[in-house]
Amino acid sequence: MKRSDRLVAMTHYVLDRPRELVSLPFLSEKYEAAKSSISEDLGILNKMFQKEGIGYLESVSGAAGGVKYIPAFSKEYSHQFVNQLCERLEDPARLLPGGYLFMSDILGEPGTVRNIGRLFASVFSDKEIDAVMTVATKGIPLAYAVAAYLNVPVVIVRRDPKVTEGSTVSINYVSGSTKKIQTMVLTKRSLAEGSKVCIIDDFMKAGGTINGMKNLLTEFNAEVAGIGVLAEAEDEEEDRVVDDYVSLVQIISVDDRDTKIEVHEGNLLSRIE
Amino acid sequence: MKRSDRLVAMTHYVLDRPRELVSLPFLSEKYEAAKSSISEDLGILNKMFQKEGIGYLESVSGAAGGVKYIPAFSKEYSHQFVNQLCERLEDPARLLPGGYLFMSDILGEPGTVRNIGRLFASVFSDKEIDAVMTVATKGIPLAYAVAAYLNVPVVIVRRDPKVTEGSTVSINYVSGSTKKIQTMVLTKRSLAEGSKVCIIDDFMKAGGTINGMKNLLTEFNAEVAGIGVLAEAEDEEEDRVVDDYVSLVQIISVDDRDTKIEVHEGNLLSRIE
Repeated sequence: MKRSDRLVAMTHYVLDRPRELVSLPFLSEKYEAAKSSISEDLGILNKMFQKEGIGYLESVSGAAGGVKYIPAFSKEYSHQFVNQLCERLEDPARLLPGGYLFMSDILGEPGTVRNIGRLFASVFSDKEIDAVMTVATKGIPLAYAVAAYLNVPVVIVRRDPKVTEGSTVSINYVSGSTKKIQTMVLTKRSLAEGSKVCIIDDFMKAGGTINGMKNLLTEFNAEVAGIGVLAEAEDEEEDRVVDDYVSLVQIISVDDRDTKIEVHEGNLLSRIE
Repeated sequence: MKRSDRLVAMTHYVLDRPRELVSLPFLSEKYEAAKSSISEDLGILNKMFQKEGIGYLESVSGAAGGVKYIPAFSKEYSHQFVNQLCERLEDPARLLPGGYLFMSDILGEPGTVRNIGRLFASVFSDKEIDAVMTVATKGIPLAYAVAAYLNVPVVIVRRDPKVTEGSTVSINYVSGSTKKIQTMVLTKRSLAEGSKVCIIDDFMKAGGTINGMKNLLTEFNAEVAGIGVLAEAEDEEEDRVVDDYVSLVQIISVDDRDTKIEVHEGNLLSRIE
């Protein structure tokens, strides 16, 4: 195969398999080229991925060595994306009764959701992660986006058990903002014991829901490997029950009367080099 | 920029923007090359995308002309993927009390979900579609996967209204299998009047839920542009209330006593050329 043909095919192949080891002998056979030529190709891919700000290729040495594509957004692009998001969220038309913000349109855009996933995956790229966990409903697309770039499965916690899922483990937790006791349910066979889990959700106020997921994980002898939320909101009356988390944006204030919303960047940007 | 560098960058750029017009002048400026060179590059991309079975580039002529990447799985790959899925679903360990099948593990795999999305997008690639609609919870990842390849937003119908979403439109519908009256709710501002909508769900028996979504669409003066379900099941006691749909697999029989499951390919494969 010609180099130009190979570069196109290999770019797609590698991008489609983040964090997966793609071995040199395999590529050499698949694209009918000497290992030395494939090595040169991978050098071009690595250089261009970095230039385009979408990550890099990690080299794995040894006889069965090869590369892993590690998705990582560049600092520049991350800032640009988060700032755009803040601006969009500050649109007064988003104000709903009760001081809530309408965000379903943003969460409905596959491209935006994919970029959010790429950002979280960039931050968690050096962690060992076996699964991404979220609670139905709004966190689901974000969890899949993160999981796609980490190349691990998604586990969905529900607030109501479903008959079509088999036996479950359930816990009670106290919602941070309303102080109500609620239930969370996870199908037994959906998570292996001892898994390292990244928790993703769309919104965090006092952190009760995320704390509930953490408690659920201890029932599975599983570990929290990271916590990511799209938006965090200040809650003056509460002490936050979750502290080690990454947020994309911070909702500083929602003024119902003056229809003014203030949204700042979250702590995620400070973790991207 | 050198051709080899350009090919890597352009492959990523185009794959990231399915069905979006990428203009020749734009590419020429972005990658600092003459339009004639970019044209040749696009020819290589088109040839290799087809060879890899992931789609093709559609040419758009005129002064602001360029290309659109149309994701489309090759017939060969589609058959292979669907047959593997059937085999996995026939595993007796999936049997749950009541003759239900455990599928959450499969729906939790981002790679599998992405491929399912790519298959549906291939079938609907010649349709004009403005949005993908599904009902919470299990259809959500599938809907996002389809929407990503069609490059349109996702609209999520709920069974319970949420205060954080603003005003809603709700309808009642009769569940096909249980004959119970149920409610479906969609936030008013999540779908524009007159939209052409593709409905996606994980499972269809009599079709009551999908019929409910069709009724909801008429409330928005919106049109059904296509219906796709991952798995359809036979239901002898019912006449199906939905007829024009595409299914990936067909659950022929689930034998609780002999723990035997029979799953065949659905009608989707016959629509892929």
